[in-house]
Amino acid sequence: MKARIKVTLKNGVLDPQGKAIENALSALGFDGVDDVRQGKYLELDIAETDEACARTRVEEMCEKLLANTVIENYDIELEAS
Amino acid sequence: MKARIKVTLKNGVLDPQGKAIENALSALGFDGVDDVRQGKYLELDIAETDEACARTRVEEMCEKLLANTVIENYDIELEAS
Repeated sequence: MKARIKVTLKNGVLDPQGKAIENALSALGFDGVDDVRQGKYLELDIAETDEACARTRVEEMCEKLLANTVIENYDIELEAS
Repeated sequence: MKARIKVTLKNGVLDPQGKAIENALSALGFDGVDDVRQGKYLELDIAETDEACARTRVEEMCEKLLANTVIENYDIELEAS
């Protein structure tokens, strides 16, 4: 089963990287761009075939390693492969 | 309009960061995890209200700054805000 995970900063957490991208876009002439936030995107294959089991397992991975839940949210999408 | 952009490494491009995550997951006792790939995820607000215009504009941003199209693919999702 294929898992796609988006890890994003929580609202209110400063995102200097996003701010830098916003400034760079503006310097390149892209106006009207606001509120840029950068996160991480992960794809992985998991041997689990049951969707509920797979979700629990991936959530556990996010809590333990993939996301810092103090400042980050994660969002999991699963797709049978 | 809200744009969500996923930037991922093309197939065949080595992903040492993904490999490191795979090893770390395995060291934590998560077995059966394969083919971990790490990419970037970006969210931004764009002043454009027309979807076609917005897409063209965001594609331009990806080509010019957000993605290295030699080794990376990008995928754009738009949502009226």
